[in-house]
Amino acid sequence: MNQVIPVMENIQDRNDKIAAELNRELTGRQVFAVNVMGCPGAGKTTCLTYILPKLPRKSFVIEGDIASDIDTIKLTELGIATRQINTGGACHLDSPLIENAVPDDFSDGFLFIENIGNLVCPAEFMIGEHIKLLISSVTEGSDKPYKYPLAFEKADLILLNKCDLIPYLNFDEELFTRGVRQLNPSVPIIKVSGQTGEGFDEAAKWLTERVIG
Amino acid sequence: MNQVIPVMENIQDRNDKIAAELNRELTGRQVFAVNVMGCPGAGKTTCLTYILPKLPRKSFVIEGDIASDIDTIKLTELGIATRQINTGGACHLDSPLIENAVPDDFSDGFLFIENIGNLVCPAEFMIGEHIKLLISSVTEGSDKPYKYPLAFEKADLILLNKCDLIPYLNFDEELFTRGVRQLNPSVPIIKVSGQTGEGFDEAAKWLTERVIG
Repeated sequence: MNQVIPVMENIQDRNDKIAAELNRELTGRQVFAVNVMGCPGAGKTTCLTYILPKLPRKSFVIEGDIASDIDTIKLTELGIATRQINTGGACHLDSPLIENAVPDDFSDGFLFIENIGNLVCPAEFMIGEHIKLLISSVTEGSDKPYKYPLAFEKADLILLNKCDLIPYLNFDEELFTRGVRQLNPSVPIIKVSGQTGEGFDEAAKWLTERVIG
Repeated sequence: MNQVIPVMENIQDRNDKIAAELNRELTGRQVFAVNVMGCPGAGKTTCLTYILPKLPRKSFVIEGDIASDIDTIKLTELGIATRQINTGGACHLDSPLIENAVPDDFSDGFLFIENIGNLVCPAEFMIGEHIKLLISSVTEGSDKPYKYPLAFEKADLILLNKCDLIPYLNFDEELFTRGVRQLNPSVPIIKVSGQTGEGFDEAAKWLTERVIG
């Protein structure tokens, strides 16, 4: 396997170089970019449908999926400007893909990049973002920070979704929070529900303050 | 990216060659190997705790996780022989890892290999298995076959888990089933619940018939 490592490093180096350039360009255009990560079915798109209308500036969404344009159709029907990327099989988005997908004339707003549903690989690749937003759902269980540490370690904001289902689950919130805190002592954890709408005012307020101060 | 492709192909070739050798060896030892795939939190380990005691032969479990030995502790406490693999960061198990983890003296039984929680990468790598068992949970939503087709296409058996939660969700079973059928016309889909125990008799019966006939 030794000969593989330099190649992997080159891919990562190239990715990170383009990510840094893209981040500088977006910053110059007053675009605040959010890398939205989470498991398949964590509720990434649903959370965006709640948060975006609460933000003080316009938004653009890049939807990353292996296949299908289900989420782009959903967002477009709500009047949210969205562009679909299908990776065909690749398990994460990378910065060259995003560099090509950001509209040239988008400025003064929020760019949400919904990554492939995968709690492992997306956390390893910068894609030009200013922050990483992790959507974790209570139905995934309380032990996820211990099993998939990198995504929790790198998150700038965690939304704990599907909280309306807690009465029907054995979700141990204390165990979950302790696991997150071991990796990431200060990340905010906001409880939300895509069924009831709970918590999204607070999430939108956090994002707004992060940009406007 | 052109120079990367041959290296990836070599990794895949080497993996598949070792997987085929391992499969032959396990078959010779009367070991039936099951590659257990699914999202983080789909309920892979929980399903195993229900199914294994219902099987007519002994079982051995290889637990794949990026970090932690939470599931190995859980299974060991139930008297199930288990060996932990921690990949450290790798998003799937590969056949050299499994070749090293199978006990030399295990024969005449079921080998369950619980892959990393990831609906993307594990489906791409053979690891010596006779069948792929996909655990999909209703809380992940009805659109997963459309968004993550490979795992559904390659599955020999699908357990649709957490069915006790259907009354509290907007799960569209017809949409889910139609998506699976487009990819995999004949795969059995058995509804199960790790809360109520529903469906695991049928799952154990299917596995038993597959081995003993």
